[in-house]
Amino acid sequence: MAWNTNLRWRLPLTCLLLQVALVVLFGVFVRYDRDADAHWVEDKLHSNSSDLDNEFYYRYPSFQDVHVMIFVGFGFLMTFLQRYGYSSVGFNFMLAAFGIQWALLMQGWFHSYQDGYILVGVENLINADFCVGSVCVAFGAILGKVSPIQLLIMVSLSCTARDCHELDRPLVPKVKDAGGSMTIHTFGAYFGLTVTWILYRPNLYQSKERQSPVYHSDLFAMIGTLFLWMYWPSFNSAVSNHGDAQHRAAINTYCSLAACVLTAVALSSALHKKGKLDMVHIQNATLAGGVAVGTAAEMMLMPYGSLIVGFICGIVSTLGFVYLTPYLESNLRIQDTCGIHNLHGIPGIIGGIVGAVTAACANSKVYGQQGLAHAFEGLSTNWSASMQGSFQAAGIFVSLAMALVGGIIVGIILKLPIWGQAADENCFDDDIYWEVPKDHAIYVSHPEDPNLKPSEP
Amino acid sequence: MAWNTNLRWRLPLTCLLLQVALVVLFGVFVRYDRDADAHWVEDKLHSNSSDLDNEFYYRYPSFQDVHVMIFVGFGFLMTFLQRYGYSSVGFNFMLAAFGIQWALLMQGWFHSYQDGYILVGVENLINADFCVGSVCVAFGAILGKVSPIQLLIMVSLSCTARDCHELDRPLVPKVKDAGGSMTIHTFGAYFGLTVTWILYRPNLYQSKERQSPVYHSDLFAMIGTLFLWMYWPSFNSAVSNHGDAQHRAAINTYCSLAACVLTAVALSSALHKKGKLDMVHIQNATLAGGVAVGTAAEMMLMPYGSLIVGFICGIVSTLGFVYLTPYLESNLRIQDTCGIHNLHGIPGIIGGIVGAVTAACANSKVYGQQGLAHAFEGLSTNWSASMQGSFQAAGIFVSLAMALVGGIIVGIILKLPIWGQAADENCFDDDIYWEVPKDHAIYVSHPEDPNLKPSEP
Amino acid sequence: MAWNTNLRWRLPLTCLLLQVALVVLFGVFVRYDRDADAHWVEDKLHSNSSDLDNEFYYRYPSFQDVHVMIFVGFGFLMTFLQRYGYSSVGFNFMLAAFGIQWALLMQGWFHSYQDGYILVGVENLINADFCVGSVCVAFGAILGKVSPIQLLIMVSLSCTARDCHELDRPLVPKVKDAGGSMTIHTFGAYFGLTVTWILYRPNLYQSKERQSPVYHSDLFAMIGTLFLWMYWPSFNSAVSNHGDAQHRAAINTYCSLAACVLTAVALSSALHKKGKLDMVHIQNATLAGGVAVGTAAEMMLMPYGSLIVGFICGIVSTLGFVYLTPYLESNLRIQDTCGIHNLHGIPGIIGGIVGAVTAACANSKVYGQQGLAHAFEGLSTNWSASMQGSFQAAGIFVSLAMALVGGIIVGIILKLPIWGQAADENCFDDDIYWEVPKDHAIYVSHPEDPNLKPSEP
Repeated sequence: MAWNTNLRWRLPLTCLLLQVALVVLFGVFVRYDRDADAHWVEDKLHSNSSDLDNEFYYRYPSFQDVHVMIFVGFGFLMTFLQRYGYSSVGFNFMLAAFGIQWALLMQGWFHSYQDGYILVGVENLINADFCVGSVCVAFGAILGKVSPIQLLIMVSLSCTARDCHELDRPLVPKVKDAGGSMTIHTFGAYFGLTVTWILYRPNLYQSKERQSPVYHSDLFAMIGTLFLWMYWPSFNSAVSNHGDAQHRAAINTYCSLAACVLTAVALSSALHKKGKLDMVHIQNATLAGGVAVGTAAEMMLMPYGSLIVGFICGIVSTLGFVYLTPYLESNLRIQDTCGIHNLHGIPGIIGGIVGAVTAACANSKVYGQQGLAHAFEGLSTNWSASMQGSFQAAGIFVSLAMALVGGIIVGIILKLPIWGQAADENCFDDDIYWEVPKDHAIYVSHPEDPNLKPSEP
Repeated sequence: MAWNTNLRWRLPLTCLLLQVALVVLFGVFVRYDRDADAHWVEDKLHSNSSDLDNEFYYRYPSFQDVHVMIFVGFGFLMTFLQRYGYSSVGFNFMLAAFGIQWALLMQGWFHSYQDGYILVGVENLINADFCVGSVCVAFGAILGKVSPIQLLIMVSLSCTARDCHELDRPLVPKVKDAGGSMTIHTFGAYFGLTVTWILYRPNLYQSKERQSPVYHSDLFAMIGTLFLWMYWPSFNSAVSNHGDAQHRAAINTYCSLAACVLTAVALSSALHKKGKLDMVHIQNATLAGGVAVGTAAEMMLMPYGSLIVGFICGIVSTLGFVYLTPYLESNLRIQDTCGIHNLHGIPGIIGGIVGAVTAACANSKVYGQQGLAHAFEGLSTNWSASMQGSFQAAGIFVSLAMALVGGIIVGIILKLPIWGQAADENCFDDDIYWEVPKDHAIYVSHPEDPNLKPSEP
Repeated sequence: MAWNTNLRWRLPLTCLLLQVALVVLFGVFVRYDRDADAHWVEDKLHSNSSDLDNEFYYRYPSFQDVHVMIFVGFGFLMTFLQRYGYSSVGFNFMLAAFGIQWALLMQGWFHSYQDGYILVGVENLINADFCVGSVCVAFGAILGKVSPIQLLIMVSLSCTARDCHELDRPLVPKVKDAGGSMTIHTFGAYFGLTVTWILYRPNLYQSKERQSPVYHSDLFAMIGTLFLWMYWPSFNSAVSNHGDAQHRAAINTYCSLAACVLTAVALSSALHKKGKLDMVHIQNATLAGGVAVGTAAEMMLMPYGSLIVGFICGIVSTLGFVYLTPYLESNLRIQDTCGIHNLHGIPGIIGGIVGAVTAACANSKVYGQQGLAHAFEGLSTNWSASMQGSFQAAGIFVSLAMALVGGIIVGIILKLPIWGQAADENCFDDDIYWEVPKDHAIYVSHPEDPNLKPSEP
């Protein structure tokens, strides 16, 4: 049965209503924070500080790098499918643009709410991008199988769930997770996997021929991979403490990612019967090191510690693509289009564990007395490293729980047959939701003509 | 009638003569400004300031983002045409590289001239990029219909006109336009539209089949769109006052752009009879929010104000692509290849108006007493917000007037049949000016062969 | 004779062994430097400095730009070959990821070794990227003709040779080369040319049909070109002294690159019999200005000096592509796939000479007394400008000598027939080392079928 995929009224109304709601909510709640408000000039005079002390100069370059990761990184990473490039980049663009606004509100209510207003500055912009990052992760699991309306619904609920998750902090009060191994990657991955499990399509094999790349689509995907890889040090350091913590987070991430590339290449070749490399692994498994070092990056993980984390994740992630993804699909009915379980799921959990262990090992010899207080700031006097480690470990389970619960709720809502989703035989095809040029349309409509077969680059 | 498009002597001579002239003029006039000169070490000691007070650290990250917008952003945005990718990226590269040098001179004479020298620092580099930005906008209107020589002529005259425009500041003395809604976008758009109106080609339909995209050319264009979109907060904040103004400009632009994406998506779907999205709108209308918030971004527009601006512009811009561009072409003989009227023209004017209104509403309650003086610095004691608002409004008309006058002069010069422009049936074709690979040439030369039709990706 | 190109065990083992070695060496030697260590909080309190004095804020934005140049810039620049895109981007990714780790160690031993530890901070990350840059240059000469194992061997030996080169500094003690005209470009180019000379393949004409671009592969290459071009000011200024030197280096590089584009365009058109532009020149010769200004960029070269350098290099480089590369191949048996001799070799030497002349002309009138001492810091009292000039000139010859010696050693090692290199008729083909999609494979396997010929975009 083919559902009605004509979105002419549903998509515009959804977009406009959401955007109107955002305008109203921003009007009621959102104001500039101290460093972005025109009164800052007076504040600055009183506090005798200089222009450079504005938070803008500490965070803005990192913010822009994170922004590129969300829009170009995730957007192009998913263009590997031969006929789903418009949707990969375009829907990612749409969902992220909506998501950052929604996340500014949700995170604002929970973290920057003062005297009835949400005060917004550059750190909020970064956190909004982070929140959207977790949705982009989840998008990877359901890529090609959902309509833009479903994506908008998922974004709004997922950001809410994720921030309730952060709200949970009273329960798990002082979990540190600057690079988001748990709150972004683990949460996003298991959320997405739960959604795709509920949206299981038994006849998806009918779209199988479009679920592979063509030559140039793989090159487009490499644009995404490389921008994610290069800017990941900014991602993991963007909201760390000023100074040494930001510096250290960048170094650790750089090291972990570098190690990860080599082991991903090694495994990719070792697992192919002729020793050939597989683009899927190069595009994805090379990034697992960045995910896995997210929690611990700002801690004294040491450069070799980062290399070890990257080393392990390159191997685990590639193995996951070769063995686990097919298993999940055939045995557990989890259809994971981009293999996010291997790139974000397992490495995210590894990252949470690494963070817990690193925190549990913290001591004043390694950090210095003041360094330790600074790194785990805001801690009560009865703080101990092992207690921090336990909190960190608890954080993993909270992330997983929120992801599963949130994913089930969202999955059930998205299963309703009214959102314009494609039939099983029309998945992974831009033609459903986009006006595509003739060159593409011809190929799409006559796949049986052998003369045309190789014409798609 | 086909003109002679062999540029063998004309293009090299033009380039070399221009570059020699630039070397001589730089030799006579251009020196480093205080912060880039080796004497700065002494200055620093005397003024008791630190290394970080060098303007470089306030502006350089934003400069690089702006630089990417000009070269990758505008360059790739225009690669959507199926057989004009080399020219889009290559000519944009050439004109921008020439333009930044020329703009350094022109802007220097008008703004940084001291004791017989133009003193150049990082802010000048940003302003040179801005000036070139207005030419890149204009290029969008005439894309595919002009020769590289015509582009070089246009750049030199356009930058001159634009800076005379800025020279006009004694007339309209204290207009604020940090993000260039008026001086970059409105000026560039109406300048380009005037030029293309004068260069009207009645038989352009002969090249119609090349005026559409193919699948992968649209993906290349999305690279341009995304880099423009992501870095636009840097564009609008790059030359704002240090501290809160830069910070606020980035936040406002971020908000406006995000809102714009959703309404552009909504309208794109609503205006298609099957509710499908059109890549042209996603590539262009999503950027209108950045244009329209250019003037007011550094003011206390408030986040919800930015959302409203973006909301309106996404709608207006998409409507423009669907209804206005065809109307302009058929009724007013304005052939606007990239639809710059919808992306830069109307949103630029909206931006000017928003800036005027926002300035007119400025008061010391919102800005603080010192904040107000700082935001509209250099103002005489009889300054009032409504006066500033009037100046801002006048700025729009000055921009339009300069664009029309400049466009007419440049258009008439470019109409001379000696610049190697292509015949009407050869427009939008790289083959005229570039050595293209065989795969492309074969397709170009046998379009009637049905077997080959779908071969172009 | 076809060698065995099945890398199933050789590549994985090489990667894993190298990575294990790196983990061990990092464990023994690498620690965080002062600004990235948690003890920094205490240091800061004692030295009464602020968060912003952390080196991170001076260097990190430039570091990220350099990072993009190495991975996206060099990676995509080499995708111009029609069937070698996976390898260009993928192998560059692999070699650079390995190289930065190795370079951290090598450079650390020679430059940041303290009390038995290599102390790593953001400047080390930049220098590691620089070192890898020289290998990426060399990769350009042998692109398409070597296996990934050969690349890994080349990286490890080349980084070692290059850092021994830097070790040589006791001999040539105070050579300044912040942008690496000599130590990165000259060294990398002549190293790569020597290697390719030793690996000469007499029957390479058998792969000739794959040594040309197709339409979209040239556009992918432009992504690389533009990111190299735009971020080159960051490259040349990344490790310069804080303040005016960094500022000046960015301005000089910006000017030189801009001038270079115009003369490259001029020569490209002038040297084609119909005056058409050649993408090879636009992709490569436009960058020569950045190479040639590397040494002198931080000196008082003056903006017009930079324009002159760019002017000359655009011409020389384009002439090299048209006349010198074919000559080298046919007469000197040097097969230079990307023409690195024209982009890095000659411009690198020009850059060394420009640096020597600029240094020799330095005087306290131009720099100021303190500025001179600061620019050529660490100099003994009997320092003179002409002496500095001689040191600079000597630096060129040391670079050349190290490149030739290193290249010969590496070339001989790589000539062993055990590294999985492709046969002459299989060069420039991803299919040897990568699992490629069917669309590509079909085209590759039936090149004689005329219907399929134009199908590759």
